[in-house]
Amino acid sequence: MGSDSDWTVMSEASAVLDEFGIAHEVEVVSAHRTPEKMIAYGKQAAARGLKVIIAGAGGAAHLPGMLASVTTLPVIGVPVPLAKLDGLDSLLSIVQMPGGIPVATMAIGGAKNAGLYAARVLGASDPAIAEALDRYARDLAALVEEKNERLKQSR
Amino acid sequence: MGSDSDWTVMSEASAVLDEFGIAHEVEVVSAHRTPEKMIAYGKQAAARGLKVIIAGAGGAAHLPGMLASVTTLPVIGVPVPLAKLDGLDSLLSIVQMPGGIPVATMAIGGAKNAGLYAARVLGASDPAIAEALDRYARDLAALVEEKNERLKQSR
Amino acid sequence: MGSDSDWTVMSEASAVLDEFGIAHEVEVVSAHRTPEKMIAYGKQAAARGLKVIIAGAGGAAHLPGMLASVTTLPVIGVPVPLAKLDGLDSLLSIVQMPGGIPVATMAIGGAKNAGLYAARVLGASDPAIAEALDRYARDLAALVEEKNERLKQSR
Amino acid sequence: MGSDSDWTVMSEASAVLDEFGIAHEVEVVSAHRTPEKMIAYGKQAAARGLKVIIAGAGGAAHLPGMLASVTTLPVIGVPVPLAKLDGLDSLLSIVQMPGGIPVATMAIGGAKNAGLYAARVLGASDPAIAEALDRYARDLAALVEEKNERLKQSR
Amino acid sequence: MGSDSDWTVMSEASAVLDEFGIAHEVEVVSAHRTPEKMIAYGKQAAARGLKVIIAGAGGAAHLPGMLASVTTLPVIGVPVPLAKLDGLDSLLSIVQMPGGIPVATMAIGGAKNAGLYAARVLGASDPAIAEALDRYARDLAALVEEKNERLKQSR
Amino acid sequence: MGSDSDWTVMSEASAVLDEFGIAHEVEVVSAHRTPEKMIAYGKQAAARGLKVIIAGAGGAAHLPGMLASVTTLPVIGVPVPLAKLDGLDSLLSIVQMPGGIPVATMAIGGAKNAGLYAARVLGASDPAIAEALDRYARDLAALVEEKNERLKQSR
Amino acid sequence: MGSDSDWTVMSEASAVLDEFGIAHEVEVVSAHRTPEKMIAYGKQAAARGLKVIIAGAGGAAHLPGMLASVTTLPVIGVPVPLAKLDGLDSLLSIVQMPGGIPVATMAIGGAKNAGLYAARVLGASDPAIAEALDRYARDLAALVEEKNERLKQSR
Amino acid sequence: MGSDSDWTVMSEASAVLDEFGIAHEVEVVSAHRTPEKMIAYGKQAAARGLKVIIAGAGGAAHLPGMLASVTTLPVIGVPVPLAKLDGLDSLLSIVQMPGGIPVATMAIGGAKNAGLYAARVLGASDPAIAEALDRYARDLAALVEEKNERLKQSR
Repeated sequence: MGSDSDWTVMSEASAVLDEFGIAHEVEVVSAHRTPEKMIAYGKQAAARGLKVIIAGAGGAAHLPGMLASVTTLPVIGVPVPLAKLDGLDSLLSIVQMPGGIPVATMAIGGAKNAGLYAARVLGASDPAIAEALDRYARDLAALVEEKNERLKQSR
Repeated sequence: MGSDSDWTVMSEASAVLDEFGIAHEVEVVSAHRTPEKMIAYGKQAAARGLKVIIAGAGGAAHLPGMLASVTTLPVIGVPVPLAKLDGLDSLLSIVQMPGGIPVATMAIGGAKNAGLYAARVLGASDPAIAEALDRYARDLAALVEEKNERLKQSR
Repeated sequence: MGSDSDWTVMSEASAVLDEFGIAHEVEVVSAHRTPEKMIAYGKQAAARGLKVIIAGAGGAAHLPGMLASVTTLPVIGVPVPLAKLDGLDSLLSIVQMPGGIPVATMAIGGAKNAGLYAARVLGASDPAIAEALDRYARDLAALVEEKNERLKQSR
Repeated sequence: MGSDSDWTVMSEASAVLDEFGIAHEVEVVSAHRTPEKMIAYGKQAAARGLKVIIAGAGGAAHLPGMLASVTTLPVIGVPVPLAKLDGLDSLLSIVQMPGGIPVATMAIGGAKNAGLYAARVLGASDPAIAEALDRYARDLAALVEEKNERLKQSR
Repeated sequence: MGSDSDWTVMSEASAVLDEFGIAHEVEVVSAHRTPEKMIAYGKQAAARGLKVIIAGAGGAAHLPGMLASVTTLPVIGVPVPLAKLDGLDSLLSIVQMPGGIPVATMAIGGAKNAGLYAARVLGASDPAIAEALDRYARDLAALVEEKNERLKQSR
Repeated sequence: MGSDSDWTVMSEASAVLDEFGIAHEVEVVSAHRTPEKMIAYGKQAAARGLKVIIAGAGGAAHLPGMLASVTTLPVIGVPVPLAKLDGLDSLLSIVQMPGGIPVATMAIGGAKNAGLYAARVLGASDPAIAEALDRYARDLAALVEEKNERLKQSR
Repeated sequence: MGSDSDWTVMSEASAVLDEFGIAHEVEVVSAHRTPEKMIAYGKQAAARGLKVIIAGAGGAAHLPGMLASVTTLPVIGVPVPLAKLDGLDSLLSIVQMPGGIPVATMAIGGAKNAGLYAARVLGASDPAIAEALDRYARDLAALVEEKNERLKQSR
Repeated sequence: MGSDSDWTVMSEASAVLDEFGIAHEVEVVSAHRTPEKMIAYGKQAAARGLKVIIAGAGGAAHLPGMLASVTTLPVIGVPVPLAKLDGLDSLLSIVQMPGGIPVATMAIGGAKNAGLYAARVLGASDPAIAEALDRYARDLAALVEEKNERLKQSR
């Protein structure tokens, strides 16, 4: 992520990965404040064994796109909302990438889904993760049913 | 894709996949006009051996999100711009997914990047594709240099 | 509605229906978390005797449109505002439906009007409801007059 | 509709009603240029035997909301896009109605769906129309399949 | 104004008129809840001796435009911001009037300026008000200077 | 107006004034390119006998607000749309004036209404203009009726 | 700045200039309330020895553009967000300047960057400032690293 | 600039610099396609004797911000509009920079002003350029007057 203040949002991605037992690292790498470290980080990612990169940033959010430009790993971008504009600037800065350099953009503040999408990417070639995702989906459905029942009883 | 009129945009995704030699199928599956076929398509995708789904749709673009809700494969969404609103409605309808069901959203009309992102997802566990992506990146850079030279000479 | 957290907004629709003595059921049916239940719910709605469906959802709000795609009953959609974007994403995701599958969209957070619109739909063939709506309109006008007087006196 | 220039858009609503054999009238009634005729039109609509009103207007589009305020019939609003702002002004002017006076808003330029929604409203108490709507839905699905086949063959 | 809840905003217009000694009345007249009273109010305004009408409303804000359609007096519209969309809906619903029926639109929540604009309209043919406006402008400038000095001293 | 290229839009204001027989002058006065002439123009306007100022400008449209800051005459602002953003920038730059300096903002490109609003301002103290405005309103209504008839016959 | 209430935002610019030891003055100069003082201020700025002007304003923010029109010094504009619209109106009013009169626009509320940009402008011809900017950039990078370490330890 | 297709827009900046006799180079440097060249270009800029950098880019426009992060020279950003969204994405991606790394943002498509702003920056320490800017401003004013006269004669 681009700043430690993004952690409130981005920690949800980490929590999901923990939940799925997917090893990962957390790093503050700023496209604007530590550009060369960022470039190095992206360039070495694949060789270091990373499979997916999740990058969250706000405002003129350049981190996801810049990482995607120096690696060929799949990059997942999370638009972090700032105090103004409700994250619309972050969203457009991340999603409107030019042809050639794709970033998989999640919802504004959607770090949880970034973790889940990373799991889906890995699950495409890892049956254990795929199965865990199936379970997760069934749990979600069960939770909705449970809430449905609770709501009906409370009326 | 949700309609055959999306093909003008979505064919770019198919072209990229061809370029990378990635086998794929093209299907018109409408979330709104053929909802049950859409559900069946999504549910059987993994068992049929698909690894990634690219879904393009416009306006109240529900196809990518609905497919993501019935499969655990990674889904890539392409906001197709309609005659009005420049695709902003398509973008928000695809990207603003609730926690639990991620869709990897590309730029408005960004079907080419959808193809490339699919390649990146596959490349995460397939060295040949990863290498082809590296080559693609180098070619892009060379192309920029070439255009740079041409522009300078024409001035 | 798509989530039990929508109840704060959607309960107003239920309250209006109670006020008009219109029997109704309340159900959490998520387009994304329980897609097959949602499809089944929509398909059986008419046969079960429902006359109108009110569906509220937020963000990439697919519930109203998906229900409209599996029933020919009139569907009324309520854009539920989330923490960011003030419900603009919900509104566009619900209202911008493609030709063939209409959803009657209410204001952002307009659950009360969803209840009233359901009453209007039923009132089109039920004189008692039509009359109750006339009374409701007269009461609204009287209330405005009363507030007008109170404001004038307080100045 | 508010102006005869809206006819290019609104004629689609009329065409759908013709297709379903639903009798209807077409009238230019301007909220701003003929306000008293508009009020009279709305007030007499139910007594004259109308069951649903479809109102299309653009810009500061007041017609649907004003008609809804003088009748208790269900009103369907169509945001007609003008030369600037892509119909966003029309959409917000129609959909953001205050509590008490609902308007069923369709997509920008969605006159066809307005006709279909009127059919759904009538179909809620008229089995013949309900059945025609079922047929229409099946035809839509078949059309999608047909286009799907044609696209596949052309590749 | 369309609702007594608009008074928090609209009272500033009244305060300015008091400050300029301009006689005025305050009335809650709802375009949607009391449409016929609203029409009557607008039609009789000129004959009753009113010179200008200030109308504030929020959301699908139809009051200013509807009053402008039944009087030829100058109408001043104030977009009242509601809980969502920051008044952008109110602004577009008021300002985007069709050719033929003008409304003088103020800033979102700009009731004070509505009062001042009414004074300018009257001042165009009343030298005493024109002079009071000159004084007001000079006072504003002096106030800015005073604040400027105070800020400089506090640094 | 701020530029001679605004004339395509602003000539409609002039045409309306001609139609009502209201004497007026046309001047290109740029807030940004001829700021001092602009200030002088505004300051002398009242003394030169002007009663109302119509100012059209596009983009960062400062002309109407700046004129309003150096005169106490009523100023009418017309947001002229430029090639990008559909005039939304022009609209916000004109309408969002701070408390103290009102500008009567018209629709995007609404120069015709600017002319009519000027007539309304003058008509508030000039019975002949008021009467002409009444006639104009009746003509508008008649025109709508005529178009209504024509449309009905052509169907 | 246009109002003393802008000081909460604009003081950050002043603080940065102090940090770099760059002499500067703070002045409330309102484009709308003290237009002539504003013109005079801009015209005399270069002769008085100013090298750069930082201007912050909100809403219909005309101050930066108007100053740029009466001086040839580089002007830096800061869009100050008001209570509504999150500063989008301020941003567009400042950035969308016509060809001929440039304003260097910063982020919404970006007064700190305005101070830094002024330092960059001065640093282009003053090696001491350029060096201080280099140090500032290195400190920023170090701070990111420090926060990175702290975050990692806290996990 | 980020792509040779930006030249249609960006050539205006070059033309202005030519007009002022300011030596400059034109380079296609893509933040996304040639990230390392871009970093190198920015890092060496000051040492190579560049005084100002003008960077134009569209969509997720990262070039100006990334250059600003590797140099302490003043960077001027030009949002290049793409086929969709009218350059709003480009604008927000460039202007919404985080504290610490300023970019001087011009209007959408405002390359001409980028050239003029570069001249202003240089003019702050170069009297000859400052004088040329004064002349340019006087010429602009004269041109407005000329157009004013021509318009008046043509009426």
